[in-house]
Amino acid sequence: MASKNDHQFMRAALVEAQKAFVIGEVPIGAVVVSDGRIIGRGHNLREHLNDGVAHAEIMAIEEACATMNSWRLVDCDLYVTIEPCLMCAGAIINSRLKTVYFGARDPKAGAVRSLYQVLEDPRLNHQIEVFEGVLKAQSAQIMKDFFRAARKRKK
Amino acid sequence: MASKNDHQFMRAALVEAQKAFVIGEVPIGAVVVSDGRIIGRGHNLREHLNDGVAHAEIMAIEEACATMNSWRLVDCDLYVTIEPCLMCAGAIINSRLKTVYFGARDPKAGAVRSLYQVLEDPRLNHQIEVFEGVLKAQSAQIMKDFFRAARKRKK
Repeated sequence: MASKNDHQFMRAALVEAQKAFVIGEVPIGAVVVSDGRIIGRGHNLREHLNDGVAHAEIMAIEEACATMNSWRLVDCDLYVTIEPCLMCAGAIINSRLKTVYFGARDPKAGAVRSLYQVLEDPRLNHQIEVFEGVLKAQSAQIMKDFFRAARKRKK
Repeated sequence: MASKNDHQFMRAALVEAQKAFVIGEVPIGAVVVSDGRIIGRGHNLREHLNDGVAHAEIMAIEEACATMNSWRLVDCDLYVTIEPCLMCAGAIINSRLKTVYFGARDPKAGAVRSLYQVLEDPRLNHQIEVFEGVLKAQSAQIMKDFFRAARKRKK
């Protein structure tokens, strides 16, 4: 169940999404939380870094690893505004995160609920608890606003 | 079909794997090739960088993106000694690589043949041609040597 804290951390992820929005990146944001404290923040920077790996979750995970001085983010949670893709879901597994909270689904590339459910795959060496729908409307709205503006610019 | 060139590039990936081996990292190596030229090299650096994202394929893709000054690695191929995991397979899709050649399968985490076949999933917005078994024996042997030595050290 989503709690008051979940909303607080997803709001921090939405702030990250907003940072992506204002620089023309697909507006997805993420934070990693340990013991009630944000230890990594990230937003999509694919175009600015010219790097297809630079998704919000990857940026947040790498900052969290640097904070913790460890690649094992045991007992850490990740909040992300949009359902992770295969790459990010794989990074979440590889980093041993405990729980993932996401806002809205991505029906075209989501690997947590939509196309795959890899975070709960019992064949892998680590499984992750998933909560979806935290600040879902806001997470979806910023994406809609971004793509509507992009279509307008094209015309 | 594996050609003479495939062997040449997989040997370069094996050199990367050897670099990981000598510093105590799980010995997996990768290269990205564009127009017959290596534009990115990488080996697993998870322990040294304290970063669960730092797999061989990710390192090679990020170097290739920097070389090309683009996140789109269109018409580029990736050679990797061991079957990519979910994260790396996702990064391969996100980077729009054309072809993936890998040496040996990873039955525990492989996402290209073993547990998933994500590179050829028609639901995703990009599909990738896959060739497996290029220098398979050498790719598997360096892993066996590494884990045998690790078990010895534990005793």
